[in-house]
Amino acid sequence: MDTAPSLRTQVRRIAKNASYDSALLHAIVDAAYLCHVAFGDAHGTHCIPTACWRIGGHLYIHGSNGSRMLKRLTEQECCVTITHLDGLVLARAAFNHSMNYRSAMIYGRFTVVEEADKEAALEAFMEHLAPGRLPLVRPGNAQEYAATTIMRIALDEAACKVRSGPPNDDEDDLHIATWAGVLPLGVARGAPVPDARCAAALAKAPDQSSAPLPDHVAGWQDR
Amino acid sequence: MDTAPSLRTQVRRIAKNASYDSALLHAIVDAAYLCHVAFGDAHGTHCIPTACWRIGGHLYIHGSNGSRMLKRLTEQECCVTITHLDGLVLARAAFNHSMNYRSAMIYGRFTVVEEADKEAALEAFMEHLAPGRLPLVRPGNAQEYAATTIMRIALDEAACKVRSGPPNDDEDDLHIATWAGVLPLGVARGAPVPDARCAAALAKAPDQSSAPLPDHVAGWQDR
Repeated sequence: MDTAPSLRTQVRRIAKNASYDSALLHAIVDAAYLCHVAFGDAHGTHCIPTACWRIGGHLYIHGSNGSRMLKRLTEQECCVTITHLDGLVLARAAFNHSMNYRSAMIYGRFTVVEEADKEAALEAFMEHLAPGRLPLVRPGNAQEYAATTIMRIALDEAACKVRSGPPNDDEDDLHIATWAGVLPLGVARGAPVPDARCAAALAKAPDQSSAPLPDHVAGWQDR
Repeated sequence: MDTAPSLRTQVRRIAKNASYDSALLHAIVDAAYLCHVAFGDAHGTHCIPTACWRIGGHLYIHGSNGSRMLKRLTEQECCVTITHLDGLVLARAAFNHSMNYRSAMIYGRFTVVEEADKEAALEAFMEHLAPGRLPLVRPGNAQEYAATTIMRIALDEAACKVRSGPPNDDEDDLHIATWAGVLPLGVARGAPVPDARCAAALAKAPDQSSAPLPDHVAGWQDR
């Protein structure tokens, strides 16, 4: 899709970097653990970071039933934005410096996920955070499910914007003998830090103490 | 400061993680290359990522004079949010999983930086992106400065929220023999990628071709 799905998703600034391709949109969402949600209320406009995941053509968020944000989101349209910063772009001229990034803005209204669909939604969330972990932990009980609201928004009205590659210097500046290029940025995955209470519990369960680490822990830094 | 500066900065969800300390706020802003700005217009609420930097008690952004966002921001209060994701927190129970993060929400109204102050503001921006780079590049000319709007917002009405450390499992779940702990996330700085046209220009300037890389390039991965 190379045309915007709505007036407000039509990118105007540096429009050549815009895309309305759903595969790109899904990739940007899937690479994120969190999004920023913008909405309004009597106190002004708010921009709140929250965990997110995707199932098919929807982006999901969750929270306590008491969450102000979740309540407000049932009443109005909002904007959900995900941004991955990929690098600093160093040019030969001060004003041609830039950043490489992949971003997605999604417009629409969240709807509350029905009780019958909550379990599958949260299972997908766990798979997103730590694939294969679900059978290893205590599942949610009725009280925990009842206290949690899950919401989703269709990925239909959305725009992506991507910048990649080297600086775009003016021809007149190319002679300047300054290092120019990209300082790459990405996600660093550090060595897993076990909870101090973890070893004790594993030692008390002899069948577990010598068990290999689950793949989502052992393979974390290779993900 | 341990009390919120306004009603709308009073953190209500997991309020023990809230802070109104300006040193923490400054550190969160200084660790960021970009922020998300939420504002409204006739088409709805928008959440737009943009580069940011700090001078003293203000957060700065910039853009083309024609930017819709910058125009709208002169007319209304907005919310600026910065979020650093520090790790996935794996608990023994599905519903106790969490994330470690440092976030800041800043409320207020941006004001346009006067012509006389634009140069110093953009110099600070360059120092934030690439310390020591400014003397090595072509400075902005009158036309470039004239086409660029710089805006700033006071860091007075703001709230930070930070979660760190291990999972908070219920006592009843501590016996569960599952790996629990934190999968750390951070910023990865990849090896600098020189522009293909860079080597040619440096070779033509013999005094530069053997010059050491500037510190902001050579030291990028150690920053």
